[in-house]
Amino acid sequence: MNSDPNFTKNRVLLIQCKDEAGLIHRITGFLAKIGANIVGNQEFVEPLEKVFFMRTEYSLQDREKEEGLITELSKILPTDAKLSLSKPRLPKVVLFATKEPHCLGDILLRWRYGELPMELLGVVSNHETLGDLVRDFKVPFTCISSEGLSREDHEDKLNSLLLELQPDWIVLAKYMRILTPDFVKKWENRILNIHHSFLPAFVGAKPYEQAYKRGVKIIGGTAHMVTENLDEGPILVQDVCHVDHGYSPERLVLYGRDLEKVVLSKALRLLLEDRVMVFRNRTIIFE
Amino acid sequence: MNSDPNFTKNRVLLIQCKDEAGLIHRITGFLAKIGANIVGNQEFVEPLEKVFFMRTEYSLQDREKEEGLITELSKILPTDAKLSLSKPRLPKVVLFATKEPHCLGDILLRWRYGELPMELLGVVSNHETLGDLVRDFKVPFTCISSEGLSREDHEDKLNSLLLELQPDWIVLAKYMRILTPDFVKKWENRILNIHHSFLPAFVGAKPYEQAYKRGVKIIGGTAHMVTENLDEGPILVQDVCHVDHGYSPERLVLYGRDLEKVVLSKALRLLLEDRVMVFRNRTIIFE
Amino acid sequence: MNSDPNFTKNRVLLIQCKDEAGLIHRITGFLAKIGANIVGNQEFVEPLEKVFFMRTEYSLQDREKEEGLITELSKILPTDAKLSLSKPRLPKVVLFATKEPHCLGDILLRWRYGELPMELLGVVSNHETLGDLVRDFKVPFTCISSEGLSREDHEDKLNSLLLELQPDWIVLAKYMRILTPDFVKKWENRILNIHHSFLPAFVGAKPYEQAYKRGVKIIGGTAHMVTENLDEGPILVQDVCHVDHGYSPERLVLYGRDLEKVVLSKALRLLLEDRVMVFRNRTIIFE
Amino acid sequence: MNSDPNFTKNRVLLIQCKDEAGLIHRITGFLAKIGANIVGNQEFVEPLEKVFFMRTEYSLQDREKEEGLITELSKILPTDAKLSLSKPRLPKVVLFATKEPHCLGDILLRWRYGELPMELLGVVSNHETLGDLVRDFKVPFTCISSEGLSREDHEDKLNSLLLELQPDWIVLAKYMRILTPDFVKKWENRILNIHHSFLPAFVGAKPYEQAYKRGVKIIGGTAHMVTENLDEGPILVQDVCHVDHGYSPERLVLYGRDLEKVVLSKALRLLLEDRVMVFRNRTIIFE
Repeated sequence: MNSDPNFTKNRVLLIQCKDEAGLIHRITGFLAKIGANIVGNQEFVEPLEKVFFMRTEYSLQDREKEEGLITELSKILPTDAKLSLSKPRLPKVVLFATKEPHCLGDILLRWRYGELPMELLGVVSNHETLGDLVRDFKVPFTCISSEGLSREDHEDKLNSLLLELQPDWIVLAKYMRILTPDFVKKWENRILNIHHSFLPAFVGAKPYEQAYKRGVKIIGGTAHMVTENLDEGPILVQDVCHVDHGYSPERLVLYGRDLEKVVLSKALRLLLEDRVMVFRNRTIIFE
Repeated sequence: MNSDPNFTKNRVLLIQCKDEAGLIHRITGFLAKIGANIVGNQEFVEPLEKVFFMRTEYSLQDREKEEGLITELSKILPTDAKLSLSKPRLPKVVLFATKEPHCLGDILLRWRYGELPMELLGVVSNHETLGDLVRDFKVPFTCISSEGLSREDHEDKLNSLLLELQPDWIVLAKYMRILTPDFVKKWENRILNIHHSFLPAFVGAKPYEQAYKRGVKIIGGTAHMVTENLDEGPILVQDVCHVDHGYSPERLVLYGRDLEKVVLSKALRLLLEDRVMVFRNRTIIFE
Repeated sequence: MNSDPNFTKNRVLLIQCKDEAGLIHRITGFLAKIGANIVGNQEFVEPLEKVFFMRTEYSLQDREKEEGLITELSKILPTDAKLSLSKPRLPKVVLFATKEPHCLGDILLRWRYGELPMELLGVVSNHETLGDLVRDFKVPFTCISSEGLSREDHEDKLNSLLLELQPDWIVLAKYMRILTPDFVKKWENRILNIHHSFLPAFVGAKPYEQAYKRGVKIIGGTAHMVTENLDEGPILVQDVCHVDHGYSPERLVLYGRDLEKVVLSKALRLLLEDRVMVFRNRTIIFE
Repeated sequence: MNSDPNFTKNRVLLIQCKDEAGLIHRITGFLAKIGANIVGNQEFVEPLEKVFFMRTEYSLQDREKEEGLITELSKILPTDAKLSLSKPRLPKVVLFATKEPHCLGDILLRWRYGELPMELLGVVSNHETLGDLVRDFKVPFTCISSEGLSREDHEDKLNSLLLELQPDWIVLAKYMRILTPDFVKKWENRILNIHHSFLPAFVGAKPYEQAYKRGVKIIGGTAHMVTENLDEGPILVQDVCHVDHGYSPERLVLYGRDLEKVVLSKALRLLLEDRVMVFRNRTIIFE
């Protein structure tokens, strides 16, 4: 699915601010005034801190009316309001991977057949292993090996490439190196990861071996935004499957992969459709 | 469901030993010789340590043939073999509770209508709160308050009662006090607990508040045997349900309770039917 | 939990009408004018027929302002608008049962401990079997046997009792007689049923035996409103559990019961909290 | 993963016969005698008809000992016994598809990376649509269009190709034409299908539109063997996901695809590992 210059899908407006009386009334009034036709509207008030979240999907014939929308709308909202408007083009995505093909292959297939509305800028890996697969899909593949490089030097190279590509989202499709807080900060709230287990259980390495030894009866997968603390960012999607004592660690890995790929692709789709808002360490998801 | 002196259900034989060639052949041959009719048979070999587990359910007309069975059978098995044979009576159970009624009530109802094949010796609590409920079911209720007592003195009282009742299983149906390693050791592998979350995540107190703040998309319940380390014993049953940002901590508690009571009762039934074998920190469950 | 004359929980307004521009703006403006403080607001537009649904939960100091609310609000909405406002009291509920205790017992326990916000008017059964259980909970039990009666005469007796009690909701907690279309019509959209399987599969009798013979790998439970066509009313809640070839029909029944009771109680809570709107043969559920 | 002439994995013996005393003892004795080392053993007795099923996985140094195994073993089993022994090579598979890529692509990816132990003979389709995808994986693609052909003539062409290829399994990876009973009979118990819904609900066409209109709260996918009655063959794997009123028919399709592909691949793996036995209209699955 290639980038479309005459992109015409609906726009999505996301608003987050201190809750107060009359917010919905004011916002919907403003949108009516500029001729926006609301196609879908969802709100949520976080009960502990009284914060208001809203996702509005609208169509608008006269695109010029949109200019200055954020500025004008801000004037009638609480001063802490954060607003964002979806861009009039497909979101741009870079995939990171290492050696495992299941998540990467799943995303490539969905993208090839239009199931993920994104412009796929390319795949970056620290190994050559998956190069053939990516090239078979006619997607640019860049191997940036970490061999002989310090962590900082390796990340500098990654960062240079990203600065050139300017992705909206970076998806870690089983990228098996830990990113430094410094790198994460540069791409804050833009990196999506899949964790090979059911967070917050089994943080860290070899989760399926941990799970086997712990004798769990359920395994899971968790897609989350990457923050400076390993595996502790806001969760977007989780899923699980039941297992029993008869599942070897290898079998747990097999079944875990099925969870990982479906969970990661679901989470990515939610991001691409502007359905995710982050608050504290949580996500508000308007589906 | 009361204790039955003329108890006639099938017997269950559980065997655990080092794996070696011909075990099944030898065991089934032995059982054939004494006239036992095998109704169900399940084996499992743990792949990492090569340990053999077997559950055999059989019927036997001539009960005298059973005498000495364990001793005779041991002679043809590896020297490390552990054997156990179900008793010719209903298993005896004591329930522990505190103030929350959902797990306790669920077990009482199932027991009243014959869904749990056990002799219910009584309910023990550190509070009076649930006394009325228990007495409505015509079950003995004993309140052993911990007020003004050291942990050791309180547990001494509990222990005295248990020594008198001689239960096969002790079920912590939301008993909200931590048991000392000393107490646990006395009733090793006989105490079943329900943890109000999806272990090993959210160990400890206020799991639903922890879960809300972490923004999880799934909550769970875990039934496990109690060992000296808090919430780390072998897991019998786990289940989960999907939640989203709109679930307040109170709503998570409500939905969590549904998981807890079903999971605990399933685990208890597995114990009562001699379907659980413990190995290291895991369970082998023959269902 | 008894009826409360000074009932002060929030009110819930449900609106359903043809979708048109500006509806949310108009409705929230109207509520602001009478001083209602919106605590939660959810909307949905059915995409195939463009029908607008809204659930608004609000608090209001001055209860007199509420008088005429429905009439006044109707004036600014499309002419097909249907509005309903929750009553300033607990909803009144009658339970129907036959011989199986699991759903009935589950609801009684939850009600006893305040988990279901309702006034429980009583339990009606066509058998005496569950009378003791109900009376232990100090709830009125009425046995209306169908023996020697035509279906119409039996339903006349049921109907007389209901006319006297005037329940808001009738819950069929494993009531094993089929109600005539005539009876259903009298209590349209007010009867909740639990189906012992995963609708629309296995409509009708002995669903677990059907499921066993069909060799399903999943069983389920479905809570739905009762309409004139057996088991075909709008679905509120469904859940499933995985099974395998080793589950006998009896085991399927056991595990099915766990689903049934949790699913029915969840559905009942949704009704009691005014979270359910019915459209065609579907439900819109604002949770 | 290519065919391996020096294939050395364990052999799997499947036995089905009338249950009688001492079966396990006799079979394991026989295997011990020829020097087979049992790696895994599972049995099941169907409770209603008393039929015995057994799956034995063993290793054997001296392959000559295997000759005549089936014949010899039959002599000590009930006369109705059916035995089968896995072949000393990878199972051969042909995939059928039409236009939808999700199941086909998933299988191709798994096969490419060794997750499905099979020799992939090729992909057959009634359309050209998926040819490019298949060829990118270096797998033979044959388009056999049905245009202008009677159903019988079309199936004759399919059958000729299959006779040439001699697959052990035929997998319908979203093959959207109904096969005639005549064709199915020729390849009895060898055709695996994925049904786009939760059987036995929504048999037939447009299941997601049916599901939307019915307002289900759960959707599912079912992998089953194909028999002469449409969508009614023995079920191998089922899975579901929770949905709500906000899911459009298109969204249901998207989420349904995720179920379909994972369920179909799981079922295929079970077949390739000789874990499935068919009895009446059910499967016994030894996992």
